[in-house]
Amino acid sequence: MNPTACLLIIGNEVLSGRTRDANLQFLATRLGELGIPLREVRVIPDVPDTIISTVNEVRAKYDHVFTTGGIGPTHDDITSECIAAAFGVPWAVHEESRALMAADYARRDPPVEMNAARLRMATLPLGAVPIRSEITSAPGFTMGNVHVMAGVPRIMQAMFEVLAPTLVGGVPVVSRSVHAVGVFEGNIAEGLEAIQKRFPDLDIGSYPFYRPVPGATGFPGGGVALVSKGISLPDVEAATAEITEMLSRMGADPIQGEPS
Amino acid sequence: MNPTACLLIIGNEVLSGRTRDANLQFLATRLGELGIPLREVRVIPDVPDTIISTVNEVRAKYDHVFTTGGIGPTHDDITSECIAAAFGVPWAVHEESRALMAADYARRDPPVEMNAARLRMATLPLGAVPIRSEITSAPGFTMGNVHVMAGVPRIMQAMFEVLAPTLVGGVPVVSRSVHAVGVFEGNIAEGLEAIQKRFPDLDIGSYPFYRPVPGATGFPGGGVALVSKGISLPDVEAATAEITEMLSRMGADPIQGEPS
Repeated sequence: MNPTACLLIIGNEVLSGRTRDANLQFLATRLGELGIPLREVRVIPDVPDTIISTVNEVRAKYDHVFTTGGIGPTHDDITSECIAAAFGVPWAVHEESRALMAADYARRDPPVEMNAARLRMATLPLGAVPIRSEITSAPGFTMGNVHVMAGVPRIMQAMFEVLAPTLVGGVPVVSRSVHAVGVFEGNIAEGLEAIQKRFPDLDIGSYPFYRPVPGATGFPGGGVALVSKGISLPDVEAATAEITEMLSRMGADPIQGEPS
Repeated sequence: MNPTACLLIIGNEVLSGRTRDANLQFLATRLGELGIPLREVRVIPDVPDTIISTVNEVRAKYDHVFTTGGIGPTHDDITSECIAAAFGVPWAVHEESRALMAADYARRDPPVEMNAARLRMATLPLGAVPIRSEITSAPGFTMGNVHVMAGVPRIMQAMFEVLAPTLVGGVPVVSRSVHAVGVFEGNIAEGLEAIQKRFPDLDIGSYPFYRPVPGATGFPGGGVALVSKGISLPDVEAATAEITEMLSRMGADPIQGEPS
């Protein structure tokens, strides 16, 4: 069995619609490649009790928990202290991180002050292991099975790539897609379900797509993308062959890959 | 107190990274306008027990639950029958919906067959109220405080706009933004926290932005956007004035609105 992952996106700005999350898809894809499939995502607000109880719920349920957001210097950045509270450990200045940040700030031109707000970014749950990136001297960190990263996509991605080699992965999830223009889901549902039943360990999904044609009504340019996914490449390829054959029998023109 | 909302995004394709969700931000924004703020989002897989238990957990916790995804005709579309199971009611053909769909299919050229797969889209939890859109004759539905919509953004949005006038909203959430180039979060954190403490009913957020300059290191084009949000417009405007004054005192050039 592959290890499992949960992502917590922490931040009022995502729940209010101000900010469009850009981290879910990146992490979902990368975790799939590492064989640590993402099983659940939650978007939660900057509310201490909510963060603490959610972290404790999901860290007991999944092998890995990844969080994004809330580790900056401002009053609404409360993820780090909430992780400490969730684990019941002190939230304390991490001396090595403080020294690295202070040295970085001193090198800037003009130098940046290591004030109380910035010191919060060097304050970690006791026992946490920092995640350092090339982009910022303020660290993310791993506490137990909880990996805490920045919300800014570029920083989050840098932190994740530092973290990734330390994660014990599973069997990578592989997938193959077939798409066919002019095919309605309702016409293939029965045949597709039969294929799914022959490959119970695969996850076979059907995703309609639409290419509106100017001046036309409905979705005359639409079709369907059929995706087979799992940890057995031979099974994935066999299911993909059956799907292709089914589409050909219907007179469709199946094309390997996703619609472009 | 405004009514609260939770969104369930149902679908393996979002958790695997194949599909980038496009519904969260739309619903977050629209629900804020209606005074039904989104308090939590969960992305969950096409697994019956997970859907059923999650629906029952969140419908007890929030005034409204919105779901997207899983109401098409294929084997991986299981949201509707799971909602029936969550409410402990039969999942039965909804005769009016069946008749409307059959009439729609008969009008197509060439006519579309009302087969078993398509009949599933007219099968609803007993007692559900259909949500009809102009885009498709297959309905979404409301069951209790759970509003079930399609995952395809264009169809979801059409269903939501049919549903919206039936929702009893609260006081709309209003927000005002100020941004300033060249300002670091670490320099304003203390002053911003003091403003937040003077307006405890507001949600004041600080969001760094980055405009990388070619050839430069770091983020020399960056700055910060400061957002005040709440149901009291006078409070939001007063906090925004204090934020603007704070930035001016620092020698920054505060600009009303979001960075463009």
